[in-house]
Amino acid sequence: MKVGFIGLGAMGRPMARNLIKAGHEVTVYNRTRARAEELARAGAKVAATPVETAAGEVVITMLADDHALEDVLLGDLLARLREEQIHISMSTISVEFSRNLVEAHGRHGTGYVSAPVFGRPDAAEAAKLFIVAAGPKALVAKCEPLFSAMGQKTFFLSQDPPAANVLKLCGNFLIMSTLESLGEAFAFVRKHGMDPQHCLDILTNSFFTAPFAKNYGGIIAQKKYEPAGFSLRLAAKDIRLIMAAADAANVSMPIGGVIRDRFLAGVSRGLGEKDWSAIAELAAESAGLK
Amino acid sequence: MKVGFIGLGAMGRPMARNLIKAGHEVTVYNRTRARAEELARAGAKVAATPVETAAGEVVITMLADDHALEDVLLGDLLARLREEQIHISMSTISVEFSRNLVEAHGRHGTGYVSAPVFGRPDAAEAAKLFIVAAGPKALVAKCEPLFSAMGQKTFFLSQDPPAANVLKLCGNFLIMSTLESLGEAFAFVRKHGMDPQHCLDILTNSFFTAPFAKNYGGIIAQKKYEPAGFSLRLAAKDIRLIMAAADAANVSMPIGGVIRDRFLAGVSRGLGEKDWSAIAELAAESAGLK
Amino acid sequence: MKVGFIGLGAMGRPMARNLIKAGHEVTVYNRTRARAEELARAGAKVAATPVETAAGEVVITMLADDHALEDVLLGDLLARLREEQIHISMSTISVEFSRNLVEAHGRHGTGYVSAPVFGRPDAAEAAKLFIVAAGPKALVAKCEPLFSAMGQKTFFLSQDPPAANVLKLCGNFLIMSTLESLGEAFAFVRKHGMDPQHCLDILTNSFFTAPFAKNYGGIIAQKKYEPAGFSLRLAAKDIRLIMAAADAANVSMPIGGVIRDRFLAGVSRGLGEKDWSAIAELAAESAGLK
Amino acid sequence: MKVGFIGLGAMGRPMARNLIKAGHEVTVYNRTRARAEELARAGAKVAATPVETAAGEVVITMLADDHALEDVLLGDLLARLREEQIHISMSTISVEFSRNLVEAHGRHGTGYVSAPVFGRPDAAEAAKLFIVAAGPKALVAKCEPLFSAMGQKTFFLSQDPPAANVLKLCGNFLIMSTLESLGEAFAFVRKHGMDPQHCLDILTNSFFTAPFAKNYGGIIAQKKYEPAGFSLRLAAKDIRLIMAAADAANVSMPIGGVIRDRFLAGVSRGLGEKDWSAIAELAAESAGLK
Repeated sequence: MKVGFIGLGAMGRPMARNLIKAGHEVTVYNRTRARAEELARAGAKVAATPVETAAGEVVITMLADDHALEDVLLGDLLARLREEQIHISMSTISVEFSRNLVEAHGRHGTGYVSAPVFGRPDAAEAAKLFIVAAGPKALVAKCEPLFSAMGQKTFFLSQDPPAANVLKLCGNFLIMSTLESLGEAFAFVRKHGMDPQHCLDILTNSFFTAPFAKNYGGIIAQKKYEPAGFSLRLAAKDIRLIMAAADAANVSMPIGGVIRDRFLAGVSRGLGEKDWSAIAELAAESAGLK
Repeated sequence: MKVGFIGLGAMGRPMARNLIKAGHEVTVYNRTRARAEELARAGAKVAATPVETAAGEVVITMLADDHALEDVLLGDLLARLREEQIHISMSTISVEFSRNLVEAHGRHGTGYVSAPVFGRPDAAEAAKLFIVAAGPKALVAKCEPLFSAMGQKTFFLSQDPPAANVLKLCGNFLIMSTLESLGEAFAFVRKHGMDPQHCLDILTNSFFTAPFAKNYGGIIAQKKYEPAGFSLRLAAKDIRLIMAAADAANVSMPIGGVIRDRFLAGVSRGLGEKDWSAIAELAAESAGLK
Repeated sequence: MKVGFIGLGAMGRPMARNLIKAGHEVTVYNRTRARAEELARAGAKVAATPVETAAGEVVITMLADDHALEDVLLGDLLARLREEQIHISMSTISVEFSRNLVEAHGRHGTGYVSAPVFGRPDAAEAAKLFIVAAGPKALVAKCEPLFSAMGQKTFFLSQDPPAANVLKLCGNFLIMSTLESLGEAFAFVRKHGMDPQHCLDILTNSFFTAPFAKNYGGIIAQKKYEPAGFSLRLAAKDIRLIMAAADAANVSMPIGGVIRDRFLAGVSRGLGEKDWSAIAELAAESAGLK
Repeated sequence: MKVGFIGLGAMGRPMARNLIKAGHEVTVYNRTRARAEELARAGAKVAATPVETAAGEVVITMLADDHALEDVLLGDLLARLREEQIHISMSTISVEFSRNLVEAHGRHGTGYVSAPVFGRPDAAEAAKLFIVAAGPKALVAKCEPLFSAMGQKTFFLSQDPPAANVLKLCGNFLIMSTLESLGEAFAFVRKHGMDPQHCLDILTNSFFTAPFAKNYGGIIAQKKYEPAGFSLRLAAKDIRLIMAAADAANVSMPIGGVIRDRFLAGVSRGLGEKDWSAIAELAAESAGLK
């Protein structure tokens, strides 16, 4: 397929590269042009402006946040899109903004698919992402070849695009809750004179068999917060999106509140560029450890 | 081996039965004698008093709480135990009381192994428990044939018995945190008009692969809180033990506090005999669901 | 002075009336014109559009939220204001929007004073409000005759208008925290079989001498949540503004999180039109009371 | 009256001295005898053992915690008390232990009045304590001359002694909640570039008129945590008593949980000997201040 791809960050780059590898004709745009040039060597066409990515059947955006997407899309790009073209939004954006995109594309007559991903940069590299897609069924089906080039599995969630953003935030909430819980659990065992890695090994080799908990638990037990797979600063953005969606729907989330406090404190305490699992250090610190 | 077994509740009964099946010579005691008689049919000898269980090499206790164990052990039983005999405490007791047992057995010259288990009654039935043992290495080794009759795997944690109680509480904390997180996550998706079971399926078939989360998530999504695998009332006891151990070690546990509030509210709201995962109903209720 | 006054809700009406009583020449505007007509009988001139209030030296806004103020001000009104004119914003708006107003007025060359108030409608009626004013000192001084007509005391806080919004939110946070604390304290004494009003009387007549706590405690003990002095629904808006400002400044506020959860739950549970102190019912409910 | 007084700490010493000043015949006992000798110079008789304080009509205890009181009272002292004698317990003890004392005195036939106090050492010095008394009305009436020698006001709460302990804990909870709320509020205003003392002055001179909030707010704004009026370490004991009583009655207390976390962290972080208001430093630290 002929695809535009906007946003070549730690996730976007490998995703675009996998599209090229799979034989798609990809035009890339990135604010910092150097990153786009890198992909040119892999076979991408480089666009000088976002609008130039709109030549194909699909434009994928993988931008940092609502504002970045708003700037790019609701600037000239949307105006340039024709009816048969589809915009796939794959980064983590707010539920509210995804709802706005439904309206904007509706008014304009263009297609909109929301397809956030689960996975860190190494999974993006290996085309092992999990993709949660929501949008009109026919449109999602049309995008399938692209999804299968980037991920190991695509789930069709709903005809309503923002549902995918809700589920993405929900998934991140569950991971964040695990990070904080491990942080508290490790402070608890350490203050009782025990080794967190040993405890984790026992738990994850018995009833608590969860690869994500094993991985993150290991990072925390070994304090290997650098390089960051997903930075604490970006995670702080996500917990804000979660709480904003909870606010809008009047959902009390006491654990959400605990997590929010940790991420804000993490940023304030200078941990913003470490891996998001570094919030576990705050539980350790409160317990007077180290 | 010749073993005494005290406490034939939902867990103790199948555990004692598996010891018998494995060929051990088991003398059982239970306050309500009818339950002991049941096991007599399986080959157990029935003791009229706790003291009568003390004839063999080992006495196992699987009693509801500190008080029950204190009544039984620090009554006549301990006085009757001889030096070469070993007491294995397998129920969830407080870290503080486990420390007291170290001292009491130390003074008396008898052996003490702390070996709490992970698993629900069906796992006990199937001899699939996970056993975390702590105590003098030689003693734990001696008990190994018993452990392998009751569980699928035994972990040797530490020479210090209370460490096993700390880890047991830590494990329960992680499960409880998952229950509450799922409760909040489901309230979040439901208020956005989405089906929690569908969301759970996607998450647990992608990055959130954790059998315990899948199982409990299913119970919560389907509201199948009866019969209780582990009752909310008993779980409320466990979170109290967790917080007591955290208190003693001056460990802040914000998620621990959230969980504690939920379980106390669950008991106050009449959910005590439902499965402990029923605390998820409180998050739903706060969100105005149902 | 010649003053425009926009927003004649439960607070705005008595405030405007007190300006008239003090001899100021007041032109009022309200979306629902009937309310403006009421004030006409007291001597106000009625404006058909917001723009018509801009004839005097000052325009006061007392609108429900950021959006209402944005619609009114950043529509035609600001364009119409001349350099020597001053806009006084007196309702509870977000810190961020107040910062935007500094810029908007700065660009336009008009004066901006932020002057939120503390007090309920009865205090507004009695001209007993407390007013916290922030803005260029000379402008605030010019507005003093208006403030003294509406309030019992004006505090000059800062030359920077948004500071007054921060302090207003801070004050509301302290009240909300007291409401929730009283709710928990009353659930605590009631579950011990004691009468909350009796307990409150002892506390507030000994060391806990705080009229606001005495008043709200009485409302809670007697469950007199109607009519609402300040509705739970509006308070839910304010805790959102507090958390948004905390978010922007990366401030962890664990009690803020607890309060937020309560107000969201209060709205979800149908308590939105009751007095904000009704969040205390949620603590009682969790304890299984009533 | 002829009175025994056990426990001459920062509070007990001035209380006993005021009894002497008021003309009562006081026999004092303190584990560290030097403190008792000090009072001898003021006219007290010094007892060598707790039992020797039991000669008069009343024995007052002002001991650090349950254990200290248990050691003293349930040792020889209770056995020595005669039917007409009254024990007044004035320190902060657990609700559960106060209930045990009701039973112990009931069995023994002696009188028991629970009469905890509100006030810091300077209030004790000035005989300005507030005393909350609970117990059989006739007994409380008999003790009145003693209470009026030590306090500015005595409240009769209930015929049931533990009620006074519940109310004492409830009062401390409300103060602690205020301390934490001020800590969060100050972090909030400081991160917005504002001066907390100035903000406090405005709030406490307008609607937030509460001497306790003004005093503690001033301590926090000025960081004058030494000398401690009431140490953070002792306050940590009290929040444990509060949560234990809440646990026993199945009362969820989310703010209680936040406070508990702060005090445990305060002790872990080495703030134990500072004034309890120093928990506010933890909110500041989380916000990255200082």
